[in-house]
Amino acid sequence: MTGTVTTGAPRTVSRGGALAAEAARFAALGWMRGTSGNLSVVTGRDPLRLLVTASGLDKGELGARDVVPVDAEGRAVPGAGAAGKPSAEAALHARVVRLTGAGAVVHVHTVASVAMGRRRPGGIVFRDLEMLKGIGRSAHDEEVVLPVIGNSQDMRVLGDRLEEALNPLVPGVVVAGHGLYTWGADLGEARRHTEVVEWLLELELAEERGR
Amino acid sequence: MTGTVTTGAPRTVSRGGALAAEAARFAALGWMRGTSGNLSVVTGRDPLRLLVTASGLDKGELGARDVVPVDAEGRAVPGAGAAGKPSAEAALHARVVRLTGAGAVVHVHTVASVAMGRRRPGGIVFRDLEMLKGIGRSAHDEEVVLPVIGNSQDMRVLGDRLEEALNPLVPGVVVAGHGLYTWGADLGEARRHTEVVEWLLELELAEERGR
Amino acid sequence: MTGTVTTGAPRTVSRGGALAAEAARFAALGWMRGTSGNLSVVTGRDPLRLLVTASGLDKGELGARDVVPVDAEGRAVPGAGAAGKPSAEAALHARVVRLTGAGAVVHVHTVASVAMGRRRPGGIVFRDLEMLKGIGRSAHDEEVVLPVIGNSQDMRVLGDRLEEALNPLVPGVVVAGHGLYTWGADLGEARRHTEVVEWLLELELAEERGR
Amino acid sequence: MTGTVTTGAPRTVSRGGALAAEAARFAALGWMRGTSGNLSVVTGRDPLRLLVTASGLDKGELGARDVVPVDAEGRAVPGAGAAGKPSAEAALHARVVRLTGAGAVVHVHTVASVAMGRRRPGGIVFRDLEMLKGIGRSAHDEEVVLPVIGNSQDMRVLGDRLEEALNPLVPGVVVAGHGLYTWGADLGEARRHTEVVEWLLELELAEERGR
Repeated sequence: MTGTVTTGAPRTVSRGGALAAEAARFAALGWMRGTSGNLSVVTGRDPLRLLVTASGLDKGELGARDVVPVDAEGRAVPGAGAAGKPSAEAALHARVVRLTGAGAVVHVHTVASVAMGRRRPGGIVFRDLEMLKGIGRSAHDEEVVLPVIGNSQDMRVLGDRLEEALNPLVPGVVVAGHGLYTWGADLGEARRHTEVVEWLLELELAEERGR
Repeated sequence: MTGTVTTGAPRTVSRGGALAAEAARFAALGWMRGTSGNLSVVTGRDPLRLLVTASGLDKGELGARDVVPVDAEGRAVPGAGAAGKPSAEAALHARVVRLTGAGAVVHVHTVASVAMGRRRPGGIVFRDLEMLKGIGRSAHDEEVVLPVIGNSQDMRVLGDRLEEALNPLVPGVVVAGHGLYTWGADLGEARRHTEVVEWLLELELAEERGR
Repeated sequence: MTGTVTTGAPRTVSRGGALAAEAARFAALGWMRGTSGNLSVVTGRDPLRLLVTASGLDKGELGARDVVPVDAEGRAVPGAGAAGKPSAEAALHARVVRLTGAGAVVHVHTVASVAMGRRRPGGIVFRDLEMLKGIGRSAHDEEVVLPVIGNSQDMRVLGDRLEEALNPLVPGVVVAGHGLYTWGADLGEARRHTEVVEWLLELELAEERGR
Repeated sequence: MTGTVTTGAPRTVSRGGALAAEAARFAALGWMRGTSGNLSVVTGRDPLRLLVTASGLDKGELGARDVVPVDAEGRAVPGAGAAGKPSAEAALHARVVRLTGAGAVVHVHTVASVAMGRRRPGGIVFRDLEMLKGIGRSAHDEEVVLPVIGNSQDMRVLGDRLEEALNPLVPGVVVAGHGLYTWGADLGEARRHTEVVEWLLELELAEERGR
């Protein structure tokens, strides 16, 4: 059982509390309106296990138990300590983890990501911005492309598109007409990446309006 | 007396506390500025009874007793436990409940709803947006029309317009030059629908500015 | 001494606490950035006495004593219980009170008021908006003009312009390149009027951007 | 040891607490997203010593010890009481202090500063705005230029550009593609200057969109 932490309820709940607090923080920014979006954290690698926020609840009011342990396909793991129904998107969270090795995934519905995804269906280009350092890129003379992929209700199709479009240098993807996926080594890095990418999108949207 | 809950003050007050807390939440988002807007919840079906937030008070500072029990016409029910004057719009809340079977109604004054209502007097069309799932519509290949109706101070006229324009697939209506009505089976669903519709309106307004 | 309340420190401080709390509320909305703006409340009519927030302090961090009693010309009243320096604009608060009979005056620096004042130097016209009822106007078929006056550092000049431009039907004036003055019978009504006028200005600015 | 305050841990920590609280305030405004930006306060003049917020941490969650004492070149001072790694930008904070005599420096990443810096690479001109008094300028008939300098990762190059572009009448500089530097005699004045300059930039951006 070494390497997994989902066998004991207390530890699940404690990680659940961290996920709930992080969700409340994003909800307060207005990025998870109408119960939208979901967050996950990896709790074991072999086999792959994630805790994902439960579906259908206000993301500003989750409790430590409003999380669901899921496997590498995003299916609920029977018998684990926490309750709730995983979102269908849990499968995409697991896919992101398998593709990138991330330890945490953030999915939010921001106006800027959807507005910019509609304007740049082929990908959103950023360059010469100090903020790019926050996702590990250069602040000078480097063209950084945030991929935009088409939306789908089939998580396999969506996952294939994400895999194909993935920019190994950028920890995020915009899903057109839908929202933003970002990730990081842990919840802290995933938060930083989310804030940086959203800031970049808000800047581009402000630029766009002035053109 | 079975089926109604307005006869005993404690239960009225307790539901009043929930309404007040919900109003404070919307007020904090800036959607109830200048004491505008009102919220209601159904407390009995036969005869129809609603609790509606009192008129003329700051919606961020309501107490559990700042609600008014009203009947199917939106008239204050004499002798019930809570105080305050119902807004004239209480009649429209009751009409929405009779038309849709909703258990809770939210009316807010948002800039995006009035700005988009002015731009699209014939109704606001959304399509291919994941967020549409939050009001029970499809995220793909479905044209979803949020009705826009003309404003009136005559609640019968306004109610007739709402009845005529009502889209049975969409739990909301924009009143031109006025604001947004949304509803749901209970306060939680009404909140979700409100947040989803407002998000859609903010997105369209952002799109509009870039055109 | 009847009719004045500035002779006893406790009552001054208590009204000061209400002013400080109200200022903190407006500051949290971002309308009093960089210590800008000031609020006042009438404490006596004969002779005229107002309490005005002190100059140069962060409006989100005022204490109950960070207010100054002033006379009908906006000069500090010697010997009264509260400390601090009145803003030069205290004279304009007093002038507004003398002109309108208001019991409280709010002056804030909002981006929307300055942006719209620059676009409409002859006055900002609103019509057919439910929100107009919040300042006592009709929601239909009435043209409501919010005056815009030129800025000045001479409070007599500014007061003369305000007196000349004053619309007796509208409890507010935009000072070009400066900000917004609003007033009401008491602090509660002044808050409501401020929120309503700012909402109207934000709507017009949103409309303007889409043109 | 007279004249320095970095030798004793308690005093360092207490000033650290003030820096952390100030950073949390700016973070809550959304101006320090993704751990960006940094704040400093002068703790000694001879030799020059500053406390700078530590690099790589969420600026809304700093503790009193998440600050680093640095010297006139922005290098960490060994043996002092607080922990953490100084940002490379600490050298620019120290340079600003040497150039201007400031007692506190604020560096934030705001969307408005980067958007306006891109539009006005030669400097951003403001005039006839009351808010200019908040940075010590006139509200009438004075053209006030906020300098814009090119970004660089070499703090000597960036410091030279800042020195060359510095407007002695304006306590701030925009770094293109990067963010905003502002300063004041102490943390309070630096906060006021930051809020005033950011307000001016937000106004210009709003004006820009309407053109």
